[in-house]
Amino acid sequence: MSVDANIDICEVGEKKPRPADDELGFGTIFTDHMFVMEYDEDTGWHDHRIIPYGPLSFEPSSAFFHYGQTAFEGLKAYSADDGRTLLFRPWENARRMNATGERLCIPPIDEELFVRAIEELVALDRDWVPSAPGTSLYIRPFILATERYLGLKPSSSYTFAIIMSPVGTYHGRGNDPTKIYVETEHVRSIAGGVGAAKAGGNYARCLKAEVRAARKGFHQVLWLDGQEKKYVEEVGTMNVFFRIDDVVVTPPLQGTIMPGVTRDSVLTLLEDWGVKAQERRLSLTEIADAHRAGSLQEAFGTGTAAVITPIGQLQWDDLTMEINDGRTGDITGRVHETITGIQSGKVVDRFGWTTEVPD
Amino acid sequence: MSVDANIDICEVGEKKPRPADDELGFGTIFTDHMFVMEYDEDTGWHDHRIIPYGPLSFEPSSAFFHYGQTAFEGLKAYSADDGRTLLFRPWENARRMNATGERLCIPPIDEELFVRAIEELVALDRDWVPSAPGTSLYIRPFILATERYLGLKPSSSYTFAIIMSPVGTYHGRGNDPTKIYVETEHVRSIAGGVGAAKAGGNYARCLKAEVRAARKGFHQVLWLDGQEKKYVEEVGTMNVFFRIDDVVVTPPLQGTIMPGVTRDSVLTLLEDWGVKAQERRLSLTEIADAHRAGSLQEAFGTGTAAVITPIGQLQWDDLTMEINDGRTGDITGRVHETITGIQSGKVVDRFGWTTEVPD
Repeated sequence: MSVDANIDICEVGEKKPRPADDELGFGTIFTDHMFVMEYDEDTGWHDHRIIPYGPLSFEPSSAFFHYGQTAFEGLKAYSADDGRTLLFRPWENARRMNATGERLCIPPIDEELFVRAIEELVALDRDWVPSAPGTSLYIRPFILATERYLGLKPSSSYTFAIIMSPVGTYHGRGNDPTKIYVETEHVRSIAGGVGAAKAGGNYARCLKAEVRAARKGFHQVLWLDGQEKKYVEEVGTMNVFFRIDDVVVTPPLQGTIMPGVTRDSVLTLLEDWGVKAQERRLSLTEIADAHRAGSLQEAFGTGTAAVITPIGQLQWDDLTMEINDGRTGDITGRVHETITGIQSGKVVDRFGWTTEVPD
Repeated sequence: MSVDANIDICEVGEKKPRPADDELGFGTIFTDHMFVMEYDEDTGWHDHRIIPYGPLSFEPSSAFFHYGQTAFEGLKAYSADDGRTLLFRPWENARRMNATGERLCIPPIDEELFVRAIEELVALDRDWVPSAPGTSLYIRPFILATERYLGLKPSSSYTFAIIMSPVGTYHGRGNDPTKIYVETEHVRSIAGGVGAAKAGGNYARCLKAEVRAARKGFHQVLWLDGQEKKYVEEVGTMNVFFRIDDVVVTPPLQGTIMPGVTRDSVLTLLEDWGVKAQERRLSLTEIADAHRAGSLQEAFGTGTAAVITPIGQLQWDDLTMEINDGRTGDITGRVHETITGIQSGKVVDRFGWTTEVPD
């Protein structure tokens, strides 16, 4: 852990009051500290440091104010019953952050430094990791392009930071099945685009469809492929799985959807359980046919923030598809219980997914 | 001009040294002042003010650090020979900023306030408007989503700012014809996306293809449609025009390309001159056929930063198309001379495009 030696720590004078576990929402309250470092072409990433959480200051000509050259990640730390603090597959986030960076011309970060920075920061703010069921410490690493230049080119300088927020459930609806609206006008992503990257612009472009769906009474939007608007891509901030005729189907990773860490974990679990699963294109017509035939058994979304979210209803134009009578399905429930169990140390981690945060 | 009354002005104590007109690049030097205002849902846009140019400070949880909810505009102020300072069609920028905002769930800005803020700021920093041929004061209005929340939703608060930079030519190559690489892998935009909006994410996603093209010796990339990768969309930061068989053709505004102010001005001029022009889909195959037949007469890009840029060469896979022997074409030259003439007050403005900045 030679990298650790480089992280300077400047602790806050007075710690903030922490909210009670049963008062937690999502992403509005932040811990006492944050990790920050900068990049320039001569020095590379430098000035690794943990400092009190607080505002960052940038010239108004900074590239990321104008051209969207930003990347982020999301992962969580969990309190185990035995007192350990666990991270869930943080190396996957390190890898994906660099994959996003590669697509957006952002220089890579040493993956060991990425994970160690998270570990050091969580260790320092360990008191902030909540322990009630369904709660966790959400960790948000992000990169901003900071060159002071209005021409369009990859920035020559960057700021990387990690902030952390104690959270309850993302949707504030517990684990109730969600109602999804199939978006047929707006498009999230296309082959040759940046749909597989955690790039800021991917999220801004989704807002309007999500607002429209919410006004119609739906919780999230299901995105279709950009070419033909026929095939399932992903749901809001989640990957999506459909169980049809005892086969669990999820769209393949072909560059247009988020390569979710939870998605990958679910596929691993299904294989381990001997549940037949397929990564393949899945059309809305196939889903509607299965629904009509009574073979659409269950559906769920997966994501770090949303964990495992059962889907109770799907609206495609005029067709309302109730799924599993609006109840959480068998596989959905088992996946949810197993993943959250491993994350919180209640279920034996046979896959080596969890990492203990050292003291 | 009742709106003006609301703009508080706090002048700098000591003005910065100004660069000489012949030393100007693009977008690295900024004037003494900037305009700033904030938005929240209760108050709307408020605290309109002009203050010394300097850093802005934001909480690291601010929405635009993460989700790309940003919008911008670009226009220029010009020194006329008679001493007047002219803006070119600023109301078009006001309208387009709100069109971008509408697509990204950003609240609208009063268009009169938008233009008055620019006028007040330019008037205060009038000394910064350069006067050498080809120079101007580049004006950059932009909006940032500032709500301190990591959930994905339209921000409830925003910062709007205007900064200004005295500039020479965008490419630093004067008006030499540019070499363009037709991008056939990456895609800039698609129907149902945000390609017609000046959204930050549209620019970040283009960087990698532009870097690759530059490594191959090209100045810019020509983007094709996202559905079939057959039809011309736009070039780098410009709209694009091709003259084939005495007809000037440019792609239509169907939501995937930038509705350029210069593009619109060029179409108006061509109509005024009796030059046949068409807004229609144009395939690379048609361009290649015309090139082979000797009927591809000229091509040029248009944009606020790039003005009118002649295109001397187009590379489409293995096909190298030299256009007009790499020289600036007749229509290109005439359009360039007329637009820059109107902008700088040398050519009579019969279209009411220029606005004089009042004292």
